[in-house]
Amino acid sequence: MAQTYGGIDREALTEFTSLLAEAAAEVTLKYFKAPLDVDNKLAGDQFDPVTKADQDAERAIRTLIEKHYPDHDIFGEEYGQTNKGSDFQWVLDPIDGTRAYISGLPSWGTLIALKYKGVPVIGLIDQPYLQERYIGWTTGASLNGTAIKTRPCASLKKATIATTDPDLFEPTERPKFDRVLNASRLIRYGLDCYAYAVVAAGHMDQVIESGLKPYDMMALIPVIRGAGGVATNWQGEAPGPCGRLVASGDTRLHAETLALLDL
Amino acid sequence: MAQTYGGIDREALTEFTSLLAEAAAEVTLKYFKAPLDVDNKLAGDQFDPVTKADQDAERAIRTLIEKHYPDHDIFGEEYGQTNKGSDFQWVLDPIDGTRAYISGLPSWGTLIALKYKGVPVIGLIDQPYLQERYIGWTTGASLNGTAIKTRPCASLKKATIATTDPDLFEPTERPKFDRVLNASRLIRYGLDCYAYAVVAAGHMDQVIESGLKPYDMMALIPVIRGAGGVATNWQGEAPGPCGRLVASGDTRLHAETLALLDL
Repeated sequence: MAQTYGGIDREALTEFTSLLAEAAAEVTLKYFKAPLDVDNKLAGDQFDPVTKADQDAERAIRTLIEKHYPDHDIFGEEYGQTNKGSDFQWVLDPIDGTRAYISGLPSWGTLIALKYKGVPVIGLIDQPYLQERYIGWTTGASLNGTAIKTRPCASLKKATIATTDPDLFEPTERPKFDRVLNASRLIRYGLDCYAYAVVAAGHMDQVIESGLKPYDMMALIPVIRGAGGVATNWQGEAPGPCGRLVASGDTRLHAETLALLDL
Repeated sequence: MAQTYGGIDREALTEFTSLLAEAAAEVTLKYFKAPLDVDNKLAGDQFDPVTKADQDAERAIRTLIEKHYPDHDIFGEEYGQTNKGSDFQWVLDPIDGTRAYISGLPSWGTLIALKYKGVPVIGLIDQPYLQERYIGWTTGASLNGTAIKTRPCASLKKATIATTDPDLFEPTERPKFDRVLNASRLIRYGLDCYAYAVVAAGHMDQVIESGLKPYDMMALIPVIRGAGGVATNWQGEAPGPCGRLVASGDTRLHAETLALLDL
């Protein structure tokens, strides 16, 4: 029997999530690798870029949700929370990896998650420049419609791990991360959401990050779990407000990493 | 009048270089994002992966050169130097960024340079998964046949810079690099040859690296220079055997960076 949420078929919700990604892609591809104005969200020397593409893409997604599911809640990076008291909440990051986006690098992605009664039940990572769309749900995950699986990796000694930027860790977090780094075979930097997509598809083994916001994180979890992996905070619990995330393709690797992060 | 080298038209040599890239792409795309065996070039704990794809791709390129220009010299990463005393030397890195390649990440590329009497006159960076082919020569550069230009950037304060991995610098180099990093607006990691392609196309401003081998470096220089940028060693001289390279889209930025690297 088909899985339903609040009387809506999972398949229908998944197709609609894809439709949202297509609407975002129309905007993001138009501005990618084109000269564009960049605003800075932060004062002073810090740099948190936001572009017209982020804003227009989120508006395109919101417009479709408001038309098809006007009673659903929305939480987006650019325009915040629209709370109508629904069991459904759409969590949106129109461009995860804006720094990569404005640098002409294809590791950014559009993240869309659907939460039902607080649990992320569908997650989507869309990289339209690479024409790769990853969708995860509670029992599976796919890349462009084909099932994907994480790969086995028994220990860090054999693992390829990733983080976007080692300098983004807090001073107390950095030595913990470094222990994992030093035990691993290979590290890749600078990947944003694409790292999680590649772990889900079985080409890397683990991503470790911190400081993630709900809209950075929520879509990744069903993709990783649906592909057979595990995604928790650094204590092995459900990822929470601290934004610390470890996503692993293999539970043995995950356990070894949590032990090192806990030292 | 068409530029010629040793009686051969530049256009013909450029077309042939593209043909070589296509032969390599047939091999590299077959194994990319597929499970594959990885050999380790280094003993002990260090990890320098080489794959069947590196080896087969270099053989495919060599076969074509040997057929069409049997008297030309060849210097490739995987099979070394074939020296016939020619004025022409093909410098090959079939997969620059093997670590990215084996991790399912599209920042690797095929690098092919043609040197004539010691000077790199044609350089090619091919990223077949992204379907982006960058070609540079002494007076221009193109992406998939369309002319490209670096972008203006007057100072590091406004610059997006890149390096593949900050931990690859020698202990004496790292503080020099950190001075440039701290003066810059944005840093991107993990890009291999793709960083140079993106600087040539005007989406980032500078790449700083060290420890590069001739086959890592030679193809990049005509692409950067042809697009209007500048590529030197850390002293502002022609890149040499130390493998230190700074490639900038704007000469003003280049001068500011060299001053910081010289402190």
